[in-house]
Amino acid sequence: MSIKHALPVTREQDFAAWYQAVITEADLAEDSGVRGCMVIRPWGYGIWERIQKLLDDRIKATGHDNCYFPLFIPLSYFEKEAEHVDGFAKEMAVVTHHRLIQQDGRLVPDPEARLEEPLVVRPTSETVIGAAFSRWVQSWRDLPVLINQWANVVRWEMRTRMFLRTSEFLWQEGHTAHASEAEAREETMRMLEVYRDFVEQCLALPVVAGEKPENERFPGAVATYSIEAMMQDGKALQAGTSHFLGTTFSAAQNIRFQNSAGEQELARTTSWGVSTRLIGGVIMVHGDDDGLRVPPRIAPWQIVIVPMLRETPEDEAVLAYCEALRRDLARLTAFGEPVRALLDRRPVKAATKRWSWVKKGAPLVVEVGPRDAAGEAVSVIRRDRLYTEAGKLDSRIVPRADFVAQAAGLLGAVQDSLHGQARAFLDGHIRRDIADKDALAAFFTASDRPGWAEVAWARPTGAALDAVVAWLKAERLTLRNVPLDAAPAEGACVFTGAPAVERVLVGRSY
Amino acid sequence: MSIKHALPVTREQDFAAWYQAVITEADLAEDSGVRGCMVIRPWGYGIWERIQKLLDDRIKATGHDNCYFPLFIPLSYFEKEAEHVDGFAKEMAVVTHHRLIQQDGRLVPDPEARLEEPLVVRPTSETVIGAAFSRWVQSWRDLPVLINQWANVVRWEMRTRMFLRTSEFLWQEGHTAHASEAEAREETMRMLEVYRDFVEQCLALPVVAGEKPENERFPGAVATYSIEAMMQDGKALQAGTSHFLGTTFSAAQNIRFQNSAGEQELARTTSWGVSTRLIGGVIMVHGDDDGLRVPPRIAPWQIVIVPMLRETPEDEAVLAYCEALRRDLARLTAFGEPVRALLDRRPVKAATKRWSWVKKGAPLVVEVGPRDAAGEAVSVIRRDRLYTEAGKLDSRIVPRADFVAQAAGLLGAVQDSLHGQARAFLDGHIRRDIADKDALAAFFTASDRPGWAEVAWARPTGAALDAVVAWLKAERLTLRNVPLDAAPAEGACVFTGAPAVERVLVGRSY
Repeated sequence: MSIKHALPVTREQDFAAWYQAVITEADLAEDSGVRGCMVIRPWGYGIWERIQKLLDDRIKATGHDNCYFPLFIPLSYFEKEAEHVDGFAKEMAVVTHHRLIQQDGRLVPDPEARLEEPLVVRPTSETVIGAAFSRWVQSWRDLPVLINQWANVVRWEMRTRMFLRTSEFLWQEGHTAHASEAEAREETMRMLEVYRDFVEQCLALPVVAGEKPENERFPGAVATYSIEAMMQDGKALQAGTSHFLGTTFSAAQNIRFQNSAGEQELARTTSWGVSTRLIGGVIMVHGDDDGLRVPPRIAPWQIVIVPMLRETPEDEAVLAYCEALRRDLARLTAFGEPVRALLDRRPVKAATKRWSWVKKGAPLVVEVGPRDAAGEAVSVIRRDRLYTEAGKLDSRIVPRADFVAQAAGLLGAVQDSLHGQARAFLDGHIRRDIADKDALAAFFTASDRPGWAEVAWARPTGAALDAVVAWLKAERLTLRNVPLDAAPAEGACVFTGAPAVERVLVGRSY
Repeated sequence: MSIKHALPVTREQDFAAWYQAVITEADLAEDSGVRGCMVIRPWGYGIWERIQKLLDDRIKATGHDNCYFPLFIPLSYFEKEAEHVDGFAKEMAVVTHHRLIQQDGRLVPDPEARLEEPLVVRPTSETVIGAAFSRWVQSWRDLPVLINQWANVVRWEMRTRMFLRTSEFLWQEGHTAHASEAEAREETMRMLEVYRDFVEQCLALPVVAGEKPENERFPGAVATYSIEAMMQDGKALQAGTSHFLGTTFSAAQNIRFQNSAGEQELARTTSWGVSTRLIGGVIMVHGDDDGLRVPPRIAPWQIVIVPMLRETPEDEAVLAYCEALRRDLARLTAFGEPVRALLDRRPVKAATKRWSWVKKGAPLVVEVGPRDAAGEAVSVIRRDRLYTEAGKLDSRIVPRADFVAQAAGLLGAVQDSLHGQARAFLDGHIRRDIADKDALAAFFTASDRPGWAEVAWARPTGAALDAVVAWLKAERLTLRNVPLDAAPAEGACVFTGAPAVERVLVGRSY
């Protein structure tokens, strides 16, 4: 039988329109009226706050301190590192004036207030943080420097898409300096693993961690690693990156130290980041045709209580019952933190509230009517299994005491079930037996949402890589990464026929 | 006897130079090389993170949700509200281009990439948030809207001073919309009280809460309230503001709703904010000639353990003893949170570490040498009473078990003692018996650090107020606020001779 879903469009009908519908119907974000910038609404920002908290704990536990660096970067800082500026110069917001004046009733930049040196709104902070490191680092004793920043950054984007690609976005950027290449490489891999583990455990996003091929490296990096998540349309989303920068920025910004032998050396640096893009990934991995499903660990509210009020004298008893329930739930612990339970008191119909929380993806929605209150019961909806096999809303009446006793466990079950569903989808959508280009092209044209192919390749560089990338581009494909846990390569490179040296993931991407 | 203090300059010698010395020696912040912008270093940013956490809890507990709005505001948004733009237009960073190109080996804004409408980097977000409110609010059922944002803002400043006045700074800005003036005024006062209580309890800053006179109102506000703190040089620092905006922004941004009678009405809005400026206040209220003293509730580390190592085999036992102590301390609770204890393992001499933590202002510094470890003891320094009456460093040997048992209580005692000292200073530096202008001028010239005067006045407006402000300006004085808890006014206005209606604070200010 067919279910009438809460969203106006399904994933099957139009994945891009569905994505936008989830964002709108779940009150995650909206157009701001400012080109390429969005307003992140409380439910969307609440998810970001949870991501910040849980990731920040892990960043600090691995020895990093938070700092804050300027929003503005003088042009001259960019001129020092040619490869880096080539990567970013095409898409930066440039501040040229520091005052406005009235002219013919309009506001215009004051020609008298033109900056001598224009300032760039940071697209990333390697250059300005490198300049700070060069002040902070004199001796091997000052190393390592391990810092992180939570900030907004701006990259001027021509085609924007909420959470995935906006001109302004929020992120964290870690930056570190080390005495040796080995230490810096170790840091690069440690933070990649922090991201992988965090995203799997907290966001319930299964990912593939691996090294990006040369053409996909961060501008100026010696090596770039990523975690790649698979969306329900089979496309890849780069969910986080960690870069070993070698001496690129330490040479440009003069980050030198005296080693224990008394010699001057360049430090090795790393950087790594994740952004509000992760929320786009959560939507496209966990969302369904009724809206978002938020993994409990990152849900701003994990349990929402909806009182069914009838503007009768009984309402008071229902509200008191609900408030007592909320207090009991808030005393519980799930995932090592107090349970986040909300009593929704808005002056809105109960059915409207129920569906608004279903669309927002609150993990558990608990409805309480006069009969429930009188019978010491609650009606529970689990967002990860909204319907019965018969296609009816699966709302189960449970004794109140049982529900309170089970609530923390239920949240764990929802978290695991979302991760399990996503893991099964990912594992079921990677083809590993494709041996030539024709078969590769055929795989990606045979179905609408093919997923990814992991193929053997010879790791070509330079012009040979350019040729591979050009062929892929014509097929609307990209190289994602070389998975760290891929099997050893055997046979010939799918692209060049040369002996394969490793296996690489190929897919469509966001 | 005279003590050799840790800072190169004392408060007495040169308060401004002392302030900068604290910032440098406590590693709070530094010049970024970018005009008017600072780098907030880990200890300074850690204090800000504590402020954020504790205030954010209070903002959420009063029903507000966090959101995020764009960094950029189109010029046209400002043109809608004349008074507001007059207040800000002179000091805004303006983005005019979105791309750079290479020209003669230099980077320059690409003339092809000029924006049709320049964008202002937000100096505050009333206009862009007002535009969002106008989309969100249709009916009285949508009200109140209660939101807050943690963000960076930019006001182009000609003369900058770290934390007090920088071109970019960090803050929170609350914005709310209400169905009635009474509700909006109530919100304005509620948030003023949240600030007052938070700043007193957590930052140990005694403040005077009151209404700003007309000339000191936020551009566009109907009423502005502030909390004012007294620095150790007797000057006032405006530490937070709360504004009742009436219908100024709802008229400009069209925030209308249908009331329960079915009529269209303009909403009433408020806004309120505190910023990284608070850290400047903490420095100037609690700092001494040995550096900063951080109130324990906002100290990133409350207890720092310094092992006294000698590069001998005994070091291992000392470190093991220190680590066990750290674990025991971290299990304690102070102020309702786990105690934040650090074992400082840096490869630096113990004396250097001790003084670095004294200068940073860690509330308790615990030194452990081989003899302490063998004797199950610790040497404890309380940062709020660093010296004995004889002028020696007051380091007390305490049995380890006693220290662990007392540690949470000691942190409470340090918090209280800092607040008590600051409260005594404030109370002792407000003169309330000045009855005429000459006496007022004399009070402020008689001493270097006179504090404030609370005087009776007639609350003049318009040109009469301008005359008062001009006279005060010539004396380098400002009107601070009309204290909410001031005594009723009696007699004549100090400035005009007209019958007084209330009492107003006068002082020098930052």
